[in-house]
Amino acid sequence: MQPLVECVPNFSEGRRPEVLDAIAAALRGHAAHGVRLLDIESDADHNRSVFTLVAPPKAAAAAVFDAIRTAAELIDLAQHRGAHPRIGATDVVPFVPLRGVEMADCVELARELGQRVGAELQIPVYLYEAAATRPDRVNLADLRHGEYEGLKAEIGANPNRRPDFGPARLGPAGATVIGARTFLIAYNVFLTTSDIEIAKKIAKTVRHSSGGLRHVKALGLLVNGKAQVSMNLTDFHKTPIHVAVEMIRREAQRYGVAIESGEIIGLLPQQALLDAAAWYLQLDNFRPEMVLENTLDG
Amino acid sequence: MQPLVECVPNFSEGRRPEVLDAIAAALRGHAAHGVRLLDIESDADHNRSVFTLVAPPKAAAAAVFDAIRTAAELIDLAQHRGAHPRIGATDVVPFVPLRGVEMADCVELARELGQRVGAELQIPVYLYEAAATRPDRVNLADLRHGEYEGLKAEIGANPNRRPDFGPARLGPAGATVIGARTFLIAYNVFLTTSDIEIAKKIAKTVRHSSGGLRHVKALGLLVNGKAQVSMNLTDFHKTPIHVAVEMIRREAQRYGVAIESGEIIGLLPQQALLDAAAWYLQLDNFRPEMVLENTLDG
Repeated sequence: MQPLVECVPNFSEGRRPEVLDAIAAALRGHAAHGVRLLDIESDADHNRSVFTLVAPPKAAAAAVFDAIRTAAELIDLAQHRGAHPRIGATDVVPFVPLRGVEMADCVELARELGQRVGAELQIPVYLYEAAATRPDRVNLADLRHGEYEGLKAEIGANPNRRPDFGPARLGPAGATVIGARTFLIAYNVFLTTSDIEIAKKIAKTVRHSSGGLRHVKALGLLVNGKAQVSMNLTDFHKTPIHVAVEMIRREAQRYGVAIESGEIIGLLPQQALLDAAAWYLQLDNFRPEMVLENTLDG
Repeated sequence: MQPLVECVPNFSEGRRPEVLDAIAAALRGHAAHGVRLLDIESDADHNRSVFTLVAPPKAAAAAVFDAIRTAAELIDLAQHRGAHPRIGATDVVPFVPLRGVEMADCVELARELGQRVGAELQIPVYLYEAAATRPDRVNLADLRHGEYEGLKAEIGANPNRRPDFGPARLGPAGATVIGARTFLIAYNVFLTTSDIEIAKKIAKTVRHSSGGLRHVKALGLLVNGKAQVSMNLTDFHKTPIHVAVEMIRREAQRYGVAIESGEIIGLLPQQALLDAAAWYLQLDNFRPEMVLENTLDG
């Protein structure tokens, strides 16, 4: 089977369909090389869109380069307003190993794309997560500190903010963060309350940064009038989805509420759901070969 | 993709490896036509073995015909002793639609195989489940009433026990039940007790025949010193696995015990586990396209 990576570029545009169409067209122009655009999620409040594509490694990088160029032509960060933090027209580009590809391959891919974006498009590029060149550049939030406006003021003067590739000055396309990471599952849980404070307290308990689970990022939000614990599960092998949801369930009980529903944003690997099913059904002897489809081949 | 059926023939032999090897060889002789023998589960106490194979419909029927002939040559029901009820050397042969095959196709397949077994091997054949020719022949337990010994005494005299195919008399190979049914999941749950009475009470509550769930068969057993609720889920689309296990969990609580572990015997379709995961994670918006692997194709 062909080696495949996932790539999930985030663009700072969630309102103008013609801009999103142009970015999508840039990616689809590489369909003949195996690039498949699986999903586009846009949010007008955030003024941001998340594209999900799957492709052979080199084809993914070539397609995303064209998308970055298109975004730089059509998005002006000086004019951009939105609820979500951002520093660039193409804000962040993670590569994820999917099949027949190691993390080291995705790190190399991120470096090559970063070099090209810096040199050919004159956009400053920061490498992050597994591709980071310094410990203080691993986390996306640190790289986005001060957002576009703050970075514009600092990039030329502060050596700590010198980019990994490209010029140390910010144009209308801003800067782009490129890197490699494990598969991220976006899983949101709605509570039977409109009290956002409860969602915030639960998020604080489950997330790593404030003492919770190692591979969980979480926020308490109010979405459509309902309190929501919004999560990123950054390594479902080590912090499984059922561990996170059971912790939320127990915490919710503490506040006299319950989980009303859950939602997956984008995609998730089959294994994450099989692991959850095996846990709830207490299948100590579970092996992937027990799944009928895994024994069929044509 | 090639149409596929599953076939799960049960043979009345769980002790003599040379007999099981001969049956397996009969099935594997059809490998060139796409017959894949996935699993053999033998039980010496039951003196019985369950073979699981996947194959294109016609190839499955041809392979199982050879296995039935082999079993008839090597197993003498007059000498057979075992804990499990049985009426034939090849006791029961269900065909299950897997992919690109309808239940009606499996019914037709069961009829063709039954006709051939009756005519060429002179073994009485009863059609059951979706292939049954009368309502009182739908359930396997009814067809096995009195087992081999009882059927031998009755088959010639009682018109209700006249076979669908083959002679109305029983030789050493006994009779064979052939039919078509939906995928059956064998799921056993061990309790934190050695009290078989608790397992029996719980089995009685969850099984259809005594007032429980529509597509659950259940027995309370003592296995390796532990109380076990042993289940067959005969239509996991209509009675999902999580509904059954949650009912057992609640009933166990009533008796002051809990589920220690669960086990799947044989295989189960991916969908059964995805359904369970989606239920526990409360994914109202779950669609198969959210599973990454379902969006990849090569």
